[in-house]
Amino acid sequence: MSGNAAELVARHRPSLDAALAAIRTREFFNHFPEQAKAYPPERAAEGKARFEALLGKRFDLEQPGTDGEVGGERSPYGFELGVTYPHADIDALLPAMAAALPAWRDAGPQTRAAVCIEILTELNEQTFELAYAAMHTTGQAFGMAFQAAGPHAQDRGLEAVAYGYAAMNAHVSQALWEKPQGSRPPIRLAKKWVAVPRGVGMVVGCGTYPTWNGYPGMFASLVTGNAVVVKPHPNTVLPLAMSVATARRVLAEAGFDPNLVALAADARDEGLAKTLALRPEVRIIDFTGSNEFGDWLERNAVQAQVFTEKGGVNTVVVDSFDEDQYPAALDHLAFALSLYTGQMCTTPQNLLVPRDGIRVGERAVSFDEFGTDLAAAVDRLLGDDARASGILGAVVNPFITQRLARAEGVGKTVLASRAVKHPEFAEATVRTPLIAAVDAADTGVYEHEWFGPVSFVVATDGTAHSIELYERTVREHGALTAAVYSTDEAVIAAAEEATWNAGASLSINLTGAVYMNQSAGFSDYHATGLNPAANATFTDHDFVASRFRFVQSRRPA
Amino acid sequence: MSGNAAELVARHRPSLDAALAAIRTREFFNHFPEQAKAYPPERAAEGKARFEALLGKRFDLEQPGTDGEVGGERSPYGFELGVTYPHADIDALLPAMAAALPAWRDAGPQTRAAVCIEILTELNEQTFELAYAAMHTTGQAFGMAFQAAGPHAQDRGLEAVAYGYAAMNAHVSQALWEKPQGSRPPIRLAKKWVAVPRGVGMVVGCGTYPTWNGYPGMFASLVTGNAVVVKPHPNTVLPLAMSVATARRVLAEAGFDPNLVALAADARDEGLAKTLALRPEVRIIDFTGSNEFGDWLERNAVQAQVFTEKGGVNTVVVDSFDEDQYPAALDHLAFALSLYTGQMCTTPQNLLVPRDGIRVGERAVSFDEFGTDLAAAVDRLLGDDARASGILGAVVNPFITQRLARAEGVGKTVLASRAVKHPEFAEATVRTPLIAAVDAADTGVYEHEWFGPVSFVVATDGTAHSIELYERTVREHGALTAAVYSTDEAVIAAAEEATWNAGASLSINLTGAVYMNQSAGFSDYHATGLNPAANATFTDHDFVASRFRFVQSRRPA
Repeated sequence: MSGNAAELVARHRPSLDAALAAIRTREFFNHFPEQAKAYPPERAAEGKARFEALLGKRFDLEQPGTDGEVGGERSPYGFELGVTYPHADIDALLPAMAAALPAWRDAGPQTRAAVCIEILTELNEQTFELAYAAMHTTGQAFGMAFQAAGPHAQDRGLEAVAYGYAAMNAHVSQALWEKPQGSRPPIRLAKKWVAVPRGVGMVVGCGTYPTWNGYPGMFASLVTGNAVVVKPHPNTVLPLAMSVATARRVLAEAGFDPNLVALAADARDEGLAKTLALRPEVRIIDFTGSNEFGDWLERNAVQAQVFTEKGGVNTVVVDSFDEDQYPAALDHLAFALSLYTGQMCTTPQNLLVPRDGIRVGERAVSFDEFGTDLAAAVDRLLGDDARASGILGAVVNPFITQRLARAEGVGKTVLASRAVKHPEFAEATVRTPLIAAVDAADTGVYEHEWFGPVSFVVATDGTAHSIELYERTVREHGALTAAVYSTDEAVIAAAEEATWNAGASLSINLTGAVYMNQSAGFSDYHATGLNPAANATFTDHDFVASRFRFVQSRRPA
Repeated sequence: MSGNAAELVARHRPSLDAALAAIRTREFFNHFPEQAKAYPPERAAEGKARFEALLGKRFDLEQPGTDGEVGGERSPYGFELGVTYPHADIDALLPAMAAALPAWRDAGPQTRAAVCIEILTELNEQTFELAYAAMHTTGQAFGMAFQAAGPHAQDRGLEAVAYGYAAMNAHVSQALWEKPQGSRPPIRLAKKWVAVPRGVGMVVGCGTYPTWNGYPGMFASLVTGNAVVVKPHPNTVLPLAMSVATARRVLAEAGFDPNLVALAADARDEGLAKTLALRPEVRIIDFTGSNEFGDWLERNAVQAQVFTEKGGVNTVVVDSFDEDQYPAALDHLAFALSLYTGQMCTTPQNLLVPRDGIRVGERAVSFDEFGTDLAAAVDRLLGDDARASGILGAVVNPFITQRLARAEGVGKTVLASRAVKHPEFAEATVRTPLIAAVDAADTGVYEHEWFGPVSFVVATDGTAHSIELYERTVREHGALTAAVYSTDEAVIAAAEEATWNAGASLSINLTGAVYMNQSAGFSDYHATGLNPAANATFTDHDFVASRFRFVQSRRPA
C-alpha cells in the first residue's frame, strides 16, 4: 500500500463505517449534501466555467489503444457540445486493463474502498460542472441534474462501496482450523482466503441518468477488485467521461494503474456495447436501458454476470381518498407525471381507477371527474412556462415527441400535451404530459411502456380488479415503482400482497415531497430483480456478491 | 406461526447461532457428528433393516399429479434395488408447489430456518439408512457413504441455512425514515421490506454424491422461501427420495404445505431435467454433473438463476519434499487418487512433475522414480483386497471401466489398474487406479477430465513451467482442487498466485488425514465459480443472495 493509499484509508474509514451502518438500519442517511447551498458559493460559477471550458474541445483522457476520436453530443437545450473523446481499440485497451488487476486485487478491500470513496469525494467537488454536463446531455433541468448527477449518484456509488466491502468482509481472511482427533493430537490447518475479482466489468451508460445509474455498477465492480470499462450512451458521454477521468487520476495518485477504469466511447450506431459484451475479458456487465438490449445481454453475454435495469409499466392503484388529502394527492401525482417530462424509468404510467368512480371523503367522484381533476392539477402545476421548464426540463430525444403524437390517437385524451417555451433556451423542446383515458380491455395500449410523458387512466371493474391487474401486468411486463391511494387498510394490505408477488416498490398514500419516482440511497431499493423490469437492484448483497469469488489455500499449521 | 413452528424456532436457535458464527470464523465446526460411534449403538442394525425394508417396493410418497411409477436402480455392489417412485405430471405438480409459496414466504426467515434445521435433524436420525441407500446407489464404501450422505451432507445443508438466514437478515425489516427539512418538519416515512422468494427451485441430483451435492441448493432455496423440486439422477434416486419424504413430513407437521418439497424422478433417458429447466415456474436451478449439461443449463435456462458444479482437471504441482515428508506425501497422494475409485469431482488428475526430476531432501529423484514411488505407494495402500475395497468402493457405472480401458493406451503406464475382489459383494466391480506418464506436450490427453481412477504424471520443463501449466489449464478447463508440494516458499507463493488467477482450492504440502479431495463444511469452499468447473461455490453469500429479493413498501409515518 502506498503512503497515499494508507492516508486515504484513515481519512475515509469514518465515511465507510457510516455507510456500512446505514445499509443495515436503512434509516435516512446521506453522505454527499444534496442542496446546492451546502457547497461553497463560488462553486456554481466555477462549475459553469469549467463545463463551458470543455465545450468544442478534445476531452483530455490518455488511454492505451486510442485509435481515433468520436463525438457528436447535442444539448437538448439546443446547441452542439462539440466535445470529442478518444475511441478505443479494445484489442489494446482490454489487455491493458486486465494487466492492472493483480495489484488492485492484492491491495485488498480496505484500500480499494478508500480509493473508491476518494474518487467519489473528488467527483463531489465537481458537482456543479457535472450538473451542467448532465443537464446539457440528458435535458434535465439544472436542479434535478445537480442532485441526480451529483450527490445522489455519489451516494449510490458509496452505497455500492459499502455493500462490496461488507461482502468481502463477510468472514475472516485467515483462520486456524483445528479438528479434534479424540486422544490423538488435532489436525491443524492454516487457511487463507482471498477475494478474487472476476475481471473486467463493463458499465453501459444510459441516456437519462448516466451517473446515477452508472455509479452503482462501476463502484461495485471496482471495490470488489475488478477493472471497469465504461461504455457511455452516445448522447450522454460527458458526465461519464468526467467520472472516468477523475477515477483514473485518483487511482494513479494512490499508486495504482489508471487503466483500472477506462472509457469506451463509440460512434453513433457503432454498437460497441455488443462487441464488448461478448469479449472473454468482460466478466461483469451493468446495463441500464431498453428491455430489448437488456434481454439480449441476459441471453447472450453468458461469459459475464449481467445486471440489468430496464423498463416496465409503473402502476398506481387509485381507490379512495380523505377529503382533505385529495387535492394534495392530485398535486403530488401531477408532479410525479411531470418531473423530467416523464423520462424516468420510475414515472407512473398506468393509473387504475374503477369505472364506477372512487370515494373521496363522503362523496363519490366519477371516473371522468378523477381524470379531469388530475388534468387540472397538472395544468395548475405547469401553467407558468418558466416554472414548468424547471420541472419538465427538455425532451431528450425525438422518440419522445413521436410517442406523444402517437398517444394523441389513443383512448380519450383527458389532458393534451402542450409545447412550453423555455425562458432561457429558445430551441429546447419542452412538452407537458399527455393523459389518456382507456378501458382495462385495451390491453394492447397500456400493457407496454410508453417511455416519456404519456400516462393512462385505466377504467377497471373496481379496486379488486385494479389490484389483480396491477399484479398481473407487473409480473408480465415489469415495473420499478407502484403506488396505491386508499383510505381502506384492507385495500392497502391487498396492494402490498400483490406487490410481494409482482416485485415493484410500493408507495402508499404519498402526498409529500418524496415521490413514487424517487428512491433514496441507503434505504429504498431501485428495482427488485423479481419482474421483467430488472434482474437486479440498487443495491443489495446480490448486486455485489458475485463480482468476486473467495479463493483459498490451506496448509498444515 | 403454528405452535409447532414456534417450538422449532426455540429449539433450533442455538444451532442456528452456532452455524452463523462458524461461517464468519471459518474455524473447525460441525453440528452433526461424523463418527458412527457417536450415534446410539442400535442405530446401525435398525438403519440396515430400514434400508432393506425399502427394497423391492413402491417408495411411500404421496404427491399431487402422480401419473405413474419409475424405478430401476441397481446397486454397484451387484443387485437390483427394485424400488419404484411416483412419476410426476409436472403440469399438475408445479402449480401445486407454487400455491404453497405465499404461506412459506409469510412465515419469515426465522421459522423457515428452524423448519429446515428440523428436517436436517430428522435426516440425521436416519443417517444409517441413508448411508446404506447411498452405498447401494453410488457404490461408495459404507464408511464414506455414512459420512458423505449423512453428517457431512447435513452440515452442508445447515451451512446453506445459515447463509440464507444471514442474507435475509442483512438489514432490518422495518425502519422509520426521517429526512430533515431544515426549519420545517422532517419527512417521515415508515418502510417495510419483505424477503420474497423467486419461485420454485430445481435441484438436479448427481450420480455420486446425491445428498452432499444436493442439500446445499435444496436448503438454500428452501430457507429463502422457495419451493424445491428434486430431480434425482436415475441411478441414485433413493437417498434423495428419503430426503424429500422427510422434508415433506416435517413441513406438514410444522403446519406448512408439504408440496414445498417434491420429487420428480424420471425414467432413464426421459430427460425430465431439460423439460423442468425451461419451465417458467422454475426460477432457480442447482446442478451437479457433467460440464456438457451444466453449460447447457447456463446458456438456456435464462428464466432461472443457475448454479452449477461441474468438472475439470484437478492438478498437483510436484516440486520438492523434505526427506522425512516424502513417504508420507506419497501415501497421502496414493490415498487421494484411490478414494472412491477416483469418482470424486475433486480427485487429483494431473500431477505436474519436472522432467529433470525433483529434489527430496538432499537427493535428486528422477521423473521416472517419482512415478515408480507413487505407484508403489498405491500398491502398498491397496495390496489387500478387503482393505482396498473399503477405500475404493465399487465402480459406479460402465463408463469408468471403459475410460480405464482407453487410458491403457495413453502415454506410458506407470501403474496398471487391477480388479479387486470385494470380500462381501462378489459381483461388485472394484478397480484400482491407473497412472500414466505423459509429456506436457500431450495436451490432447490431460487437458480434459478423465472422471474416475485415471491420473497422469505430466513431465514439464520445470516447476515454473508446471505452475504456468497449472494456471493455464485450470483457467481454460476448470478445476475444483489443486495441490502443491514444495519445500521452497517462493514456489508455494507462486502456486498461490496462480491459484488466485485460476480459482481452484489449493492444498499445500498436505500429508495428514485431510485430503485435497475433501472440503470441510463451514470452512472450506467447494469450487469457486471462477473457472469452468463451476459457476458457484458451497457456500458463500452469492450462493444464497439471489434466491430471494427484498420488496418494499413505504408510507407516511
